[in-house]
Amino acid sequence: NNKQFDSSPEDLPFHYWALFDGHAGSGVAVMASHLLHHHIALHLQEVMDILVSPSLATPICLGEEPEKKVSHESLVVGAIENAFKDMDFQIEREKSVYNISGGCTALVVVYLLGNLYVGNAGDSRAIIIRSGEVVPMSSEFTPESERQRLQFLAYMQPHLLGNEFTHLEFPRRVQRKEVGKRMLYRDFTMSGWAYKTIDDDDLKFPLIYGEGKKARVLATIGVTRGLGDHNLKVHDSNIFIKPFLSCCPEVKVYPLSQFEHGADDVLVLGTDGLWDVLSNQEVAEAVSCFLANCDPDDQHRQVITPSSSL
Amino acid sequence: NNKQFDSSPEDLPFHYWALFDGHAGSGVAVMASHLLHHHIALHLQEVMDILVSPSLATPICLGEEPEKKVSHESLVVGAIENAFKDMDFQIEREKSVYNISGGCTALVVVYLLGNLYVGNAGDSRAIIIRSGEVVPMSSEFTPESERQRLQFLAYMQPHLLGNEFTHLEFPRRVQRKEVGKRMLYRDFTMSGWAYKTIDDDDLKFPLIYGEGKKARVLATIGVTRGLGDHNLKVHDSNIFIKPFLSCCPEVKVYPLSQFEHGADDVLVLGTDGLWDVLSNQEVAEAVSCFLANCDPDDQHRQVITPSSSL
Repeated sequence: NNKQFDSSPEDLPFHYWALFDGHAGSGVAVMASHLLHHHIALHLQEVMDILVSPSLATPICLGEEPEKKVSHESLVVGAIENAFKDMDFQIEREKSVYNISGGCTALVVVYLLGNLYVGNAGDSRAIIIRSGEVVPMSSEFTPESERQRLQFLAYMQPHLLGNEFTHLEFPRRVQRKEVGKRMLYRDFTMSGWAYKTIDDDDLKFPLIYGEGKKARVLATIGVTRGLGDHNLKVHDSNIFIKPFLSCCPEVKVYPLSQFEHGADDVLVLGTDGLWDVLSNQEVAEAVSCFLANCDPDDQHRQVITPSSSL
Repeated sequence: NNKQFDSSPEDLPFHYWALFDGHAGSGVAVMASHLLHHHIALHLQEVMDILVSPSLATPICLGEEPEKKVSHESLVVGAIENAFKDMDFQIEREKSVYNISGGCTALVVVYLLGNLYVGNAGDSRAIIIRSGEVVPMSSEFTPESERQRLQFLAYMQPHLLGNEFTHLEFPRRVQRKEVGKRMLYRDFTMSGWAYKTIDDDDLKFPLIYGEGKKARVLATIGVTRGLGDHNLKVHDSNIFIKPFLSCCPEVKVYPLSQFEHGADDVLVLGTDGLWDVLSNQEVAEAVSCFLANCDPDDQHRQVITPSSSL
């Protein structure tokens, strides 16, 4: 599900690419592919006057003199962050009206004023290949990478676990006959492991369970950020998954205009379907090899440079 | 407040150094300097049988065959993490009996089986100087570096703010006449900034306020991790600070035995009193310059190598 979109307030070149990986139905992925860029454009519009004036510092209160150094980049980051939130609110509002099913991860790239902004909520991945070297532009949000956030939330709002799950992590399911024995565990404050004496409460199913690709939140879902999923529940229960899924992206900034780029330098966006089977390096080699054997004027090549407006 | 301590279960060389920076009284700093290493030793004792058998994998449940790869290092990390927690519990239990005042940051270094473990809760800093190069061994916990954790907690448990503070961050205090205007803000999900329309709720004092060294949590304290402070309240209120202060350290591992070290390679522990006025590089230069002019047999030199037992 790949989209491109050009908008230019006051002729400002603005490019957008995105990748939505749906689960439990395509509804949310399709809706986000149609609408997320509008939310981003709306938020950017609010700060466009500031962004287009390179000499203008950011005012704390609109219409005032600036008093604090807030970079123009951080306004774009804030716009993308809040656009994801608005998109998710809209999905929640309209899900029953339009019968929108499932959820999706979202990986977006915005080019604006010489920078690439890569926003990621989910387990898709973006890399830039520059002179054959890989520049990672996102990091994956999975039950393992977000363990401490999820455990912290469950610790503070234990009712979200419906008395069926424990927020503690154990390396494997605890068995009844092991109550009283000492088993490895991790709490939300820990990155190391320690032993604790198992009690009855530890017999509950762990909030995060399984390793690597098999890791699941509440025995249900293997990704911890994205859009939608408002109706998703633990099988055969009234426990909602959504409170643990964050719709907020991590946004990284790549100063495109500050680097020299050749014709074979590319940005690659892929879902876990790609990255589960190929490493960054393997993808870089495959792409470089393909481009080396490819006509420079090939119509599938789309070149973006700071001076071009596509 | 600097301490050294040697304990050796089954003649295992175990070295310990620590730095405690007290505030609002020295009670907690003195207590922690006397006791924290005992808590660490207790937790290490529990896993010592595993640690001293290099060939033994870590069993999930004590007495069982191992089933998952949990490194020996992560057991030491877990032991240090839980020792800080136990120390903080003990301070809370005994604070009224012994009239222990204030709180402290804690930076500890444990040498065990070829590794240095650096645990940090607060704004002290440890660096290793190796061949004149600086290796950072801790990162500081301040209202700025921990903003999102603190805001997340306040968002989920708003009663902790006593209706006097807002969990949102604003670049400066909002004035009543600005209600209805658009001002920059950040929520716990954001790393960028955006504008919001100011409402009455935003007139409350921000949970985190001030920049750099002046940044404070609840207008009270400038450090966000450490031991003690159980009685600390916002001035003239019933709002406790402690829920926002974490006693949990971040533990970094330095594989001492895997590097070549010269006689002038050192580990430096300093409080913010040092790092506020000197950079890592300036400290490295001062130390290197001092050692170059210093007798190699100087009794103030204490050399630790993987083969020595001090």
